[in-house]
Amino acid sequence: MKAEIIAVGSELLTPDHLDTNSLFLTERLNDAGFEVQLKTIVGDSEDKIAGVLGDALRRSKVIIFSGGLGPTEDDLTRTAVAGVLHRTISIDPNLLEILRQRFASRGYSMPKINERQAEVIHGAEILHNALGTAPGMWIEEQGIYIALLPGPPRELKAMFDTGVLPRIQSLGRGRTLAKKVLHVTGMTESEVDSRVAPIYKACPQVQTTILASTGHIALRLYRWLELGEDPKDLDELASKIQEALGDAIFTDSGESLEQVVGRQLRESGLTLAVAESCTSGMIGMCITRVPGSSDYFRGGILCYSNEVKMNLCGVPAEVLQQHGAVSAEVAEALARGVRDNLNSSIGLSVTGIAGPGGGSAEKPVGLVFVGLSDGKRTAHWRRIIPGDRETIRERTTYFALSLLRRFLLHRRNTENAEK
Amino acid sequence: MKAEIIAVGSELLTPDHLDTNSLFLTERLNDAGFEVQLKTIVGDSEDKIAGVLGDALRRSKVIIFSGGLGPTEDDLTRTAVAGVLHRTISIDPNLLEILRQRFASRGYSMPKINERQAEVIHGAEILHNALGTAPGMWIEEQGIYIALLPGPPRELKAMFDTGVLPRIQSLGRGRTLAKKVLHVTGMTESEVDSRVAPIYKACPQVQTTILASTGHIALRLYRWLELGEDPKDLDELASKIQEALGDAIFTDSGESLEQVVGRQLRESGLTLAVAESCTSGMIGMCITRVPGSSDYFRGGILCYSNEVKMNLCGVPAEVLQQHGAVSAEVAEALARGVRDNLNSSIGLSVTGIAGPGGGSAEKPVGLVFVGLSDGKRTAHWRRIIPGDRETIRERTTYFALSLLRRFLLHRRNTENAEK
Repeated sequence: MKAEIIAVGSELLTPDHLDTNSLFLTERLNDAGFEVQLKTIVGDSEDKIAGVLGDALRRSKVIIFSGGLGPTEDDLTRTAVAGVLHRTISIDPNLLEILRQRFASRGYSMPKINERQAEVIHGAEILHNALGTAPGMWIEEQGIYIALLPGPPRELKAMFDTGVLPRIQSLGRGRTLAKKVLHVTGMTESEVDSRVAPIYKACPQVQTTILASTGHIALRLYRWLELGEDPKDLDELASKIQEALGDAIFTDSGESLEQVVGRQLRESGLTLAVAESCTSGMIGMCITRVPGSSDYFRGGILCYSNEVKMNLCGVPAEVLQQHGAVSAEVAEALARGVRDNLNSSIGLSVTGIAGPGGGSAEKPVGLVFVGLSDGKRTAHWRRIIPGDRETIRERTTYFALSLLRRFLLHRRNTENAEK
Repeated sequence: MKAEIIAVGSELLTPDHLDTNSLFLTERLNDAGFEVQLKTIVGDSEDKIAGVLGDALRRSKVIIFSGGLGPTEDDLTRTAVAGVLHRTISIDPNLLEILRQRFASRGYSMPKINERQAEVIHGAEILHNALGTAPGMWIEEQGIYIALLPGPPRELKAMFDTGVLPRIQSLGRGRTLAKKVLHVTGMTESEVDSRVAPIYKACPQVQTTILASTGHIALRLYRWLELGEDPKDLDELASKIQEALGDAIFTDSGESLEQVVGRQLRESGLTLAVAESCTSGMIGMCITRVPGSSDYFRGGILCYSNEVKMNLCGVPAEVLQQHGAVSAEVAEALARGVRDNLNSSIGLSVTGIAGPGGGSAEKPVGLVFVGLSDGKRTAHWRRIIPGDRETIRERTTYFALSLLRRFLLHRRNTENAEK
């Protein structure tokens, strides 16, 4: 079944705004058995909205509008849709009363202008808005279904789930999108592709996409299932790919890398402290994005200046002098020092040149060292990371978390082997 | 003059992808005098692409395609466009040679499949791709101009600037979009609107939008200018709004808040250190996003545990015990302590409850304290910030940077008055 999304709003045609509602809508429509075949973004123009709806009616079973339901003269979705369908619009007295009460409950009298939001297209069902003043509408037109939803994401999401989803689920005839997403770290996109392409090409009924983001790669497998159909071939393909990539896959359940690392620390009863130079807080911020991270994260030091590296992380002045702040020796000293000073089981450190200045032939922009220490062992890794300042910092953060994950994985395997 | 953008790619119709190229294209088209009146996102289907182009030809002077120019069977923009325009497609021998050389220069022989990328629509001008294998095309069809650009953002941007911009500038007839963006911090959206609405409503020829983002509000003024027309009314409106909002506006030149704070520190010859509890690195990360921030940022302490607050930030155990980690007293002690221990002119601290757990009736989730100390004075601010964990942390970061900005502003004004 085919659906399409029409986002209304002149602000969505400026260089500052994207229609992000469509991501939510697409996910929900897919889950209900609908494939989104087109998205259109149109300004606050009655003619344009009408033109786009006219085209949509010729090709889609379900049409979802977002935006253009506010009280001002710019809000034209209602009138444009009514015009195309040759239907009248009139004030619904019950809806008007609900709107009045909504204002009254907050101690305001309803501005005259908001009366427009009680206008209902003839034959439409009203979708009530628990979170705002703009009601939505659900319209059937010769076997095609049109939903009018408000633009603010919170209101749109709530209204879709309560008003639209129950109505379209039966239309989707039990068709569903089965999917599996595998997240990989520590490999390049072409390395991943060269390993898995022979596998997924042998299973063309499952669609496979590979997407590289900062520091990690998402392998997305999906397949439309008719009612009662089994996602067996998708599961088989996922297993084969998991076998081929081994522990380069850090999750098949949508966990973030920091969640995985947090779980590892928690399960091993270990605590962590970080010493961050070029990333200057990005790693600490990531780790603590996870609720409950205070159970295993003790804190960190943003050792941006050499003085802080020496005074708070215990890096000897001569090591800094001899090897420079961006060096394997300093990375290891930082990891040891932050572990000691913050009294944690593990110390993780980063030092590097994020640019754009500060690079040299010997130590170019993008050169980073990661250090790790667990008291028994201290190790470092070196890499030259391409990109601009912010990309280098983000990739370094991901690189450090990936190394920490492997370090913890290896540590546990070794411990198990010793038992 | 009207333009529209068509993004091609089935991945853009999944829940994971947005067409972000259109933001760049819109900005460039606006600058060249074109208003973007519609954006369409369509999958890798020849029929669908053809249908959308057919509609576009009826309404727009310039049509920009992105994507669908790769070498695989999924890449259908070339054939769909040729079909609609009733033109033939043939291999261009010169282009084929250029592609072959591109591969050869990297030590590869060109795969057979890439020959498709040498296919040119009859009558099209070739737009060369300096950064990838997919060439673009520029086509005139009865006074309407169509550009075919590759999907990867780097390639698209370079090709637009070198191949499309010079061709459309003359078409725009010197029309330009004049704009001014004012960024405000420390006020709510409705406070801003109630102060400035009477001003901008008296100047309807300038379009004014107010957009609230995490921690700050953007007031965007814009107006289309015909050739030779003066943006006088836009400048006048901006001045009046600047007068009404005073120093709540932190920039009218697009600087970020961390850039403004960095400039203030640099100009005053001051250095900064941070102690972050609930934000745990977000402030340090923000400050150091600015190249050259090592000139004024000494570093920081992620004092996630009480132990770190005591041992590294000098918060007395009895203060923690008596008032709790999230308190005005601890915020001030942290600001003083991090300033002392990192030997900076200014200490900035944050302590709060980011949630979702850890709240109480007395100290709810969202409660944050910011501390500031310059040696002479130490102060704190308290606020309850709504939202989920990540929103609370982001808003706290913005709140802290806003307070630092005001603190530095006030400090300089006081110093000037004392002179």
